Amino acid sequence: MLIPRREVDFQVYEVLDAGRLCEQPRYADHDRDVFDGVLDAAYRIAAERFLPFAALADLQEPRFVDGRVEMIPQTREALAALNESSFIAAPFDAADGGLQVPMTVAQACSAVFASANVGFHAYAMLTAGAANVILAFGSEEQKRLYARPMLAGRYFGTMCLSETHAGSSLADVRTIAMPQQDGSYRITGNKMWISGGEHDLAENIVHLVLARVPGGPAGVRGISLFIVPRRRIRPDGSFGEWNDVALAGVNHKMGWRGTVNTVLSFGERGDCAGYLVGEEHRGLAYMFRLMNEARIGVGVCAVGLGLAGYRVSLEYARERLQGRPIGDKDPASPPVPIIRHADVRRMLLAQKAWTEGGLALVLYCARLVDDMAVATDDVARGRAGQLLELLTPVAKSWPSEFCLEANKLAIQVLGGYGYTRDYPVERLYRDNRLNHIHEGAYGIHGLDVLGRKLPQHGGAGWAELAERMLRTAEQAGSIPALAPFARSLAVATRRFEAVTRVLLGTAGSGRAELALANATLYLEALGHLTVAWRWLDSARVAQRALQDASGSDADFYQGKLAACRYFFRYELPRTEPLLSLLESLDDTTVTLHETWL
Amino acid sequence: MLIPRREVDFQVYEVLDAGRLCEQPRYADHDRDVFDGVLDAAYRIAAERFLPFAALADLQEPRFVDGRVEMIPQTREALAALNESSFIAAPFDAADGGLQVPMTVAQACSAVFASANVGFHAYAMLTAGAANVILAFGSEEQKRLYARPMLAGRYFGTMCLSETHAGSSLADVRTIAMPQQDGSYRITGNKMWISGGEHDLAENIVHLVLARVPGGPAGVRGISLFIVPRRRIRPDGSFGEWNDVALAGVNHKMGWRGTVNTVLSFGERGDCAGYLVGEEHRGLAYMFRLMNEARIGVGVCAVGLGLAGYRVSLEYARERLQGRPIGDKDPASPPVPIIRHADVRRMLLAQKAWTEGGLALVLYCARLVDDMAVATDDVARGRAGQLLELLTPVAKSWPSEFCLEANKLAIQVLGGYGYTRDYPVERLYRDNRLNHIHEGAYGIHGLDVLGRKLPQHGGAGWAELAERMLRTAEQAGSIPALAPFARSLAVATRRFEAVTRVLLGTAGSGRAELALANATLYLEALGHLTVAWRWLDSARVAQRALQDASGSDADFYQGKLAACRYFFRYELPRTEPLLSLLESLDDTTVTLHETWL
Repeated sequence: MLIPRREVDFQVYEVLDAGRLCEQPRYADHDRDVFDGVLDAAYRIAAERFLPFAALADLQEPRFVDGRVEMIPQTREALAALNESSFIAAPFDAADGGLQVPMTVAQACSAVFASANVGFHAYAMLTAGAANVILAFGSEEQKRLYARPMLAGRYFGTMCLSETHAGSSLADVRTIAMPQQDGSYRITGNKMWISGGEHDLAENIVHLVLARVPGGPAGVRGISLFIVPRRRIRPDGSFGEWNDVALAGVNHKMGWRGTVNTVLSFGERGDCAGYLVGEEHRGLAYMFRLMNEARIGVGVCAVGLGLAGYRVSLEYARERLQGRPIGDKDPASPPVPIIRHADVRRMLLAQKAWTEGGLALVLYCARLVDDMAVATDDVARGRAGQLLELLTPVAKSWPSEFCLEANKLAIQVLGGYGYTRDYPVERLYRDNRLNHIHEGAYGIHGLDVLGRKLPQHGGAGWAELAERMLRTAEQAGSIPALAPFARSLAVATRRFEAVTRVLLGTAGSGRAELALANATLYLEALGHLTVAWRWLDSARVAQRALQDASGSDADFYQGKLAACRYFFRYELPRTEPLLSLLESLDDTTVTLHETWL
Repeated sequence: MLIPRREVDFQVYEVLDAGRLCEQPRYADHDRDVFDGVLDAAYRIAAERFLPFAALADLQEPRFVDGRVEMIPQTREALAALNESSFIAAPFDAADGGLQVPMTVAQACSAVFASANVGFHAYAMLTAGAANVILAFGSEEQKRLYARPMLAGRYFGTMCLSETHAGSSLADVRTIAMPQQDGSYRITGNKMWISGGEHDLAENIVHLVLARVPGGPAGVRGISLFIVPRRRIRPDGSFGEWNDVALAGVNHKMGWRGTVNTVLSFGERGDCAGYLVGEEHRGLAYMFRLMNEARIGVGVCAVGLGLAGYRVSLEYARERLQGRPIGDKDPASPPVPIIRHADVRRMLLAQKAWTEGGLALVLYCARLVDDMAVATDDVARGRAGQLLELLTPVAKSWPSEFCLEANKLAIQVLGGYGYTRDYPVERLYRDNRLNHIHEGAYGIHGLDVLGRKLPQHGGAGWAELAERMLRTAEQAGSIPALAPFARSLAVATRRFEAVTRVLLGTAGSGRAELALANATLYLEALGHLTVAWRWLDSARVAQRALQDASGSDADFYQGKLAACRYFFRYELPRTEPLLSLLESLDDTTVTLHETWL
């Protein structure tokens, strides 16, 4: 099921106040009607072109036939509809051929597409990400020849980082780029886990490939970024010959089967042309631009899948009659909808708190992108940027964990039916399991947040986050119903800061391995803290709006308050054992001998 | 992969001291060599007949063709091998045609089979369970005609409880049993989720069917239990005509595909004969005998799947080279096996602690069955029985949660590879997701443990458990390396008891809905407490054995101590937020309006 529009409107307009963005010159041509129109179009396409084929795309996954990929035709039709409405171009600058829609609105649309059919959505997500890199770092000619057709949906993009022996460790990339007389490079190597690596959904595929120019430094400092088109493009934009990129295989995944995932071979015939983006040896820095965006995109997908499962299980729980309330001992009394049972409500509230909290988190990050775009001074832009850097691994990882757990509970609400392929919840669960793996595994993001994002810029990212959390706690503290939660958030923020100080101090005194040993758990705790903050802020908005609300609107706001209560009572307290463990600098994993396992 | 034999031997012989059972008259004909021989046979069959076909059974799931079920022929061959070695008969009394092997050993074999191929194993598990009910409550003729051939593996069994509208709520079973002049009954109705409901793996299928005799009480007090053979059996044991049981459909599941799961229609032609087991209206009590055994069996399966994933991911982590230790900034240094990375070790230790702890738990329950069988007085038998009743929902549910989480981490250790169908971990994860659903959903067991098992017999089950836990804490307290964990266990036991008192007091004062609202979380906490106890006991045994151990044996015991440390430092502290929530009698789910969701 799709994310309810009411939910999207609440975060976009009421919590994040996207309407006020139109007061800024960048969005002065837009107003709320425009944003609503974009959302309307996304819902229409998601409902008509994406959702009806999600089960089919899972059942008939892409196949490797005679060196090509075959897939169901509805994939192409859905993406054509997406491009008719220019969704790939939506958040890009008008100067680049984009629609200059705020990222807050664009990511809300992405969440809707992901809730409908994440496998189809991925092609658009990858294309936007790749185009963004070329627009940021490519030459004017590269922008014209590659990025513009990508925004128009004529060409699709990929990101080619991993190799069979190197997934998390990009330092070990072996693909070679040999400089040629004409300024191009000759690419040789294999790439693994390439989503959208081969298909005929678009006129061309633009691979962004990490490779080494011989003679460069070892490790990540010797990686360069290349544009490798599936079909070569002549300077006038017309197609040249096919480039030497071969499909070596198709990976068969547990889920997310609507997106083809490939093994690609570059330069098997010695004739694969690649075009350097920016300067040599700076490829990883460029690629991080794409990856950071893609990471928030992964969080958005996890949230979409989680919300879809929540809505399916909620509908089921309202309709499925079974059992009687506790205390009703009369077997002749009629069975009640299972939503009456406390444990089913707990499972629904947990899903609501995780998935709507996840949506609040990822759209907040999207709003930070918009804040950076409209900032009139470097200080404001810097603050938003540093906070975004800190929150990117959180926005990627926390939904990947807890929206997967939400899908687990969605299955549980449906019972045996949920375990069958007759209902979508098992597919959503399978799809969501990927999110902790692609675009950086969970453990990598733990190291990133504790080992890099926290200390960098003199801790400016955390300082900004703590300031914003305490400000929200102060605002909410004046509302009686929220005051206890406001206190909890303030206490938890201080506590988190104290533990962080211990860890950074330990890392700084030469014991980095010990300090970072439980970085994944640190990231989990930071995620819970951040989402608690987003819930308190959402509840503050809901409490205010409730005063003038009635009917289903009042129910909606009451639901926000209930989910906030759930999060502060059931979820935030789970961080304390994690923080205690982190503070103790536990050495269980560090002192472990491998032979003991 | 199979559970390592060393692991099974440790729990069976060193912790649970199954060898001493041979001092009892019941097992006087056996000795450790006999038990070893049984285990040897299980490992051989599991390695040769089960494991090699687990992936195939998943890929080519049973199909509904012309009213019959088609499945891969290796299913039949594996079960034939199982029966040649009399595994179904293993734990049954010699007087009933069994081998009188202790349940501790028999369940260890089951865990091995489940780790190899849970889909094949389920047929044997169901057959043993059904035979057990007939032996316990059936007539002599029923034992002769049905149970004996089941022990011999000639007939397979099923349990037919659920109907499409009634899974968790057996009070709403509608299938009718109409008494006939000859003492038999005519059965009419449909049953849902029937594993092993139709196949040609055995000469016959013996369905145990819950149905209502007209005129009986409403609800569960009006349910009777019937033997409904697929083919009727004449008094001399020869086959009569086919009974009127029709296959109405096959369910398509996310996992556990090696076991066919069916919809059955009884009496479509008005000619389905059923034979009453025991007395009318007492069927649910009889079926609970099967269900309680099946519930521990489900825990065993969850553990087998969890351990299999752990071993696959451990082997992968030892071999996969990627990344460098923290602090090694030289990209020219060779990559290390990923087992060197702290986060990978954490994921491996978590899997080890959950899955080996799960094995310790379920085999402890099996040992309680043996203790009951050899008890020479009613007091000892009663104590073991009451403890087993309390631990049955724990042994079913805790592994279903945490061995599934272990499988989730096994996928994570393998990264992208783990998400493909080229490695078994994604299948194990899909298989394991069923265990929280069948044989009573998680929430049902929460209500069972807090609403029934705790208060019954004047709280004798808990008293026995607390006494045993405190005794272990006392024993381990004298070992310096374990003393801190012994104190933690004692404190946690007292704390758990205090919270339990609050909840039972609340339930007793007419606020049962509030007291039971978070019963599932109570069960989770009880599971963590119980497994912490089993870890401390295992560590106590390991610490003692370590003094004389060397080489791989010393490593094995050190691994037990490390996993115990992990459990007490990372896992047991997670119970405190749950207990605080329970103690606060939180009403978030109870006061929730359905319209707010």
